[in-house]
Amino acid sequence: MERVTATYYIETPYAVEAAAQVLAGEQSSGTFVAVPGETEELKQRFAARVENIELLETVDHPAIPGAISSTGKYHRAMVKVSWSIENFGYNLPVLISTLQGNLYEITQFTGLKLIDIDLPASYGNHFSGPAFGIEGCKKLAGVSGRPMIGTIIKPSIGLTPEQTAAMVRTLADAGIDFIKDDELLSASANSSFENRVDAVMQVINEYADKTGKKIMYAFNISGDIDDMQRRYGKIVKSGGTSAMISINSVGISATKKICSLHQLAIHGHRNGWGMLNRHPLLGIDFTAYQKIWRLAGVDQLHVNGIQNKFWESDDSVVTSVKACLTPMFDHRRPMPVLSSGQWGGQAPETYRRTQTTDVLYMAGGGILAHPLGAAAGVTALQQAWQAAVDGLSIEEAANLYPEFAASVKKFGKK
Amino acid sequence: MERVTATYYIETPYAVEAAAQVLAGEQSSGTFVAVPGETEELKQRFAARVENIELLETVDHPAIPGAISSTGKYHRAMVKVSWSIENFGYNLPVLISTLQGNLYEITQFTGLKLIDIDLPASYGNHFSGPAFGIEGCKKLAGVSGRPMIGTIIKPSIGLTPEQTAAMVRTLADAGIDFIKDDELLSASANSSFENRVDAVMQVINEYADKTGKKIMYAFNISGDIDDMQRRYGKIVKSGGTSAMISINSVGISATKKICSLHQLAIHGHRNGWGMLNRHPLLGIDFTAYQKIWRLAGVDQLHVNGIQNKFWESDDSVVTSVKACLTPMFDHRRPMPVLSSGQWGGQAPETYRRTQTTDVLYMAGGGILAHPLGAAAGVTALQQAWQAAVDGLSIEEAANLYPEFAASVKKFGKK
Repeated sequence: MERVTATYYIETPYAVEAAAQVLAGEQSSGTFVAVPGETEELKQRFAARVENIELLETVDHPAIPGAISSTGKYHRAMVKVSWSIENFGYNLPVLISTLQGNLYEITQFTGLKLIDIDLPASYGNHFSGPAFGIEGCKKLAGVSGRPMIGTIIKPSIGLTPEQTAAMVRTLADAGIDFIKDDELLSASANSSFENRVDAVMQVINEYADKTGKKIMYAFNISGDIDDMQRRYGKIVKSGGTSAMISINSVGISATKKICSLHQLAIHGHRNGWGMLNRHPLLGIDFTAYQKIWRLAGVDQLHVNGIQNKFWESDDSVVTSVKACLTPMFDHRRPMPVLSSGQWGGQAPETYRRTQTTDVLYMAGGGILAHPLGAAAGVTALQQAWQAAVDGLSIEEAANLYPEFAASVKKFGKK
Repeated sequence: MERVTATYYIETPYAVEAAAQVLAGEQSSGTFVAVPGETEELKQRFAARVENIELLETVDHPAIPGAISSTGKYHRAMVKVSWSIENFGYNLPVLISTLQGNLYEITQFTGLKLIDIDLPASYGNHFSGPAFGIEGCKKLAGVSGRPMIGTIIKPSIGLTPEQTAAMVRTLADAGIDFIKDDELLSASANSSFENRVDAVMQVINEYADKTGKKIMYAFNISGDIDDMQRRYGKIVKSGGTSAMISINSVGISATKKICSLHQLAIHGHRNGWGMLNRHPLLGIDFTAYQKIWRLAGVDQLHVNGIQNKFWESDDSVVTSVKACLTPMFDHRRPMPVLSSGQWGGQAPETYRRTQTTDVLYMAGGGILAHPLGAAAGVTALQQAWQAAVDGLSIEEAANLYPEFAASVKKFGKK
């Protein structure tokens, strides 16, 4: 019988093997005393199994509150635990409860992070993955041979539909590929969802009629499931190609439902991610996280950006990009979305470390606050990526491209 | 205009006021440079406001990775930030993205936890809260003047529907009020959801016909939204009174949809909660968390238990019970669900500290592994609570009640 295997980075004051067995017990038989009916045959079939333990460092202070060590030492290890798919089948919420449920409460651990998940072959058949993925998104946006260049409407909240549409027109004139609502805006007092779609799509459709290129706009449909479905329908009817969902805020059951409609590319925003990942020994790593959301069918996934304005390291961002680009079954791969403080200067380093242009590269202020205007901002980003692929340094690129040079002057390190 | 105010426990190497302003900026205007269109009027209306700062301790080591202090000091504080409801209206996912979104990524913080939320009056009108709540659940289960006594079918996974039903019969004979599936089981290879509902409800309905008391069974419907709705309908049709949802695994949009159907009491299981709460300076406190899920309409909410087998302190559990019992608008209050290593011995301390019997008190092994059998296990729990309300100590209760005395002998501290 096929099994799902999870890899955890753990810390415990006890023997690692004993702590791992507590995890396996809690996440399958699940009680603190033996009870009638728990036969050996049943255990054999449904019990979680500790498959492997790799001992790592020992430390003097616990990472998070839990059992106190009698020796003053806390042992770290990589632990692999597996479950038969007979336990949960293809039910994602129950898979999540199995891999990321009560185990985080276990006092025997003073650190626990889900690092990776190995999914069995039949998952590849049962789930269809992203409906569009990298190639589908690029095709919808009329982009090839380079990254999709995108931006977020800023200020995040407060513009009217007319002001938003005016900004879209500016960005369309500038040659943008992708625009999105901010995650803070779905419907505000002065920007109803429907009016915003009408105003924005009028510009985008007009532009598409003229040029043949339809800008992808990810309207933030996050909300109640009925509202999300209605808004999704509104976008489809208006000729849009994408919808955005704040995946952590909405949750997997409603997100998967929306993804299953297969008419729009789903932009998966991971805001709230820091809660789940920022501590090195608590929560979940992106490698595991993105697998779950690929099963749900998300087409684009945020991965932060190189030299971002947030706390995350470049190494972590690079690992996340590569995770999205790693094939899973014969599914389409989700497009990694690079954003946060991006202005083009990070393109050479991003390309050097990932060797791909299969990304959506998002700049907010980097475009709209470009000293020569938004059009120059978009041009500068395209130049930055061309330079990156050509192996130029920032200085060499600035010498070659005046718009990018202006970006360097405004946004580069002083 | 009404505002939502959030209280955060923060840590920063910078001046607290400056870091708080970064949070407010990120969560409303949201970009690292000023952009055109961001007028003073717009800011006035939509910008988040830092309402209050209460300085707390200063420490020498950062709680979580972030900016490095040039002075070696990290300042902690309670910070209140508010947003106009014009930003998000009554959209819970967007409210969540606003209060718990990208702010966890901000490098200026080396600790950030959402402690509480103040919701404006109109939220009380727009949302209806739990459809059943404490009183409704007790009424459905035919319980008054004492806690609901419940149990979880164990082993968590592996029993057939017939074995589960046989256990339900034993528990019914024993006088149980409430039974639930484990969160690890929704449909397993040897226990389809439909067959389990049929087998279990046959016992429960038969018993109800005979005694007039209908045991509440929370079937775990967690899954895809369409499956959840179908399974919900199956329970209703079969005469059931409750469904369980793993709320973190399913997510708020699908959970709220199910709660809105108003035909079954929704048992909200918070597995995965440790990811969100276990670190003292990362994530969200239960006080804030339970408010969001009350808006979604969850009728019962897990709060762990006094002297539990997990890592959580008794103080934290007591705070969580009180949070559920604190009125919110004129809504029904969710029933706190006490569980984890409970066997009755914790009843006196639980009652002493919470002064309530408006709880669902869950014991797994504490009932099914009782030395005199399950019936004695249930009796012992009822005795424990009667003793608690009567102000007896564990010793006094054991002298009075033989079934409880047997529990003490088996499960009490050796």
